[in-house]
Amino acid sequence: MKAEYINPFLNAAKNVIQTMARIEVKGSKPQLKTGNTTFGKITGIIGMASAKISGNMIISFQEACILNIVGSMLMEPVKPNIDNDVVDAVGELTNMICGGAKAELSKIGHAFDLATPTMIVGENIEMTSYSDAPTIVIPLSTAHGDFVIEANFSEHR
Amino acid sequence: MKAEYINPFLNAAKNVIQTMARIEVKGSKPQLKTGNTTFGKITGIIGMASAKISGNMIISFQEACILNIVGSMLMEPVKPNIDNDVVDAVGELTNMICGGAKAELSKIGHAFDLATPTMIVGENIEMTSYSDAPTIVIPLSTAHGDFVIEANFSEHR
Repeated sequence: MKAEYINPFLNAAKNVIQTMARIEVKGSKPQLKTGNTTFGKITGIIGMASAKISGNMIISFQEACILNIVGSMLMEPVKPNIDNDVVDAVGELTNMICGGAKAELSKIGHAFDLATPTMIVGENIEMTSYSDAPTIVIPLSTAHGDFVIEANFSEHR
Repeated sequence: MKAEYINPFLNAAKNVIQTMARIEVKGSKPQLKTGNTTFGKITGIIGMASAKISGNMIISFQEACILNIVGSMLMEPVKPNIDNDVVDAVGELTNMICGGAKAELSKIGHAFDLATPTMIVGENIEMTSYSDAPTIVIPLSTAHGDFVIEANFSEHR
């Protein structure tokens, strides 16, 4: 996956979390995904599709990371564990971050539409993408823990 | 979700499994999804997206059901458990079944593109759709076990 595909996801993750939760996000060097288990305790998946490309964006948060983000988003005390509000917030963040990347990518000629986010709760869940294209992992960190964005694009043959 | 959205998934599931694996598939009455755990031992998810709609199709197989289907698809003895070949086959079936439904739905004015399938291995995984639209469950059975298709569409506001 080219850098021009990666930066829109990194920028959107920073912008959305900083805007919605007023929490600073730092990115590290993107890498190729190895292995096939989820990174964090809660994971959002969203499909990206057009006549030309198909792909997925996956976002996965360590528990303390998402609980602090959601506490800030809702302006409420940090919850003790992942509940329905947190699951919903991950759906909303998944949608907004992929929507931000979509806006940036459409400007450089890669337009697509978004499917509906799915949220999965649990650690070390075996998850595999049905794609020949490599999956890029963008590691991100906050003061309260880490999350990753994984993205994958295939051009239709 | 209207019947005109449901039958294309039911028809595609029957056609694809019967064509690829020569295994008869029987459908039961579709119902609304309640609860938020996966039905089977292996689950495929695929996003559907256009400028007008976004959605997901989820397919989830009991272990004996998918092992028999994959044995027939590959014309090999039935495997003792879910391995990489089975995970790949679920990705392929997810793509083909949703592709079949897409072809039928586009004929009646509901065109969309497909995202990349994601396959998840494990039982009773907590999985929630970020959508206001209800999810329809289509129960399907074979001589060796059951599977379900779940589908969900939202119109963009």
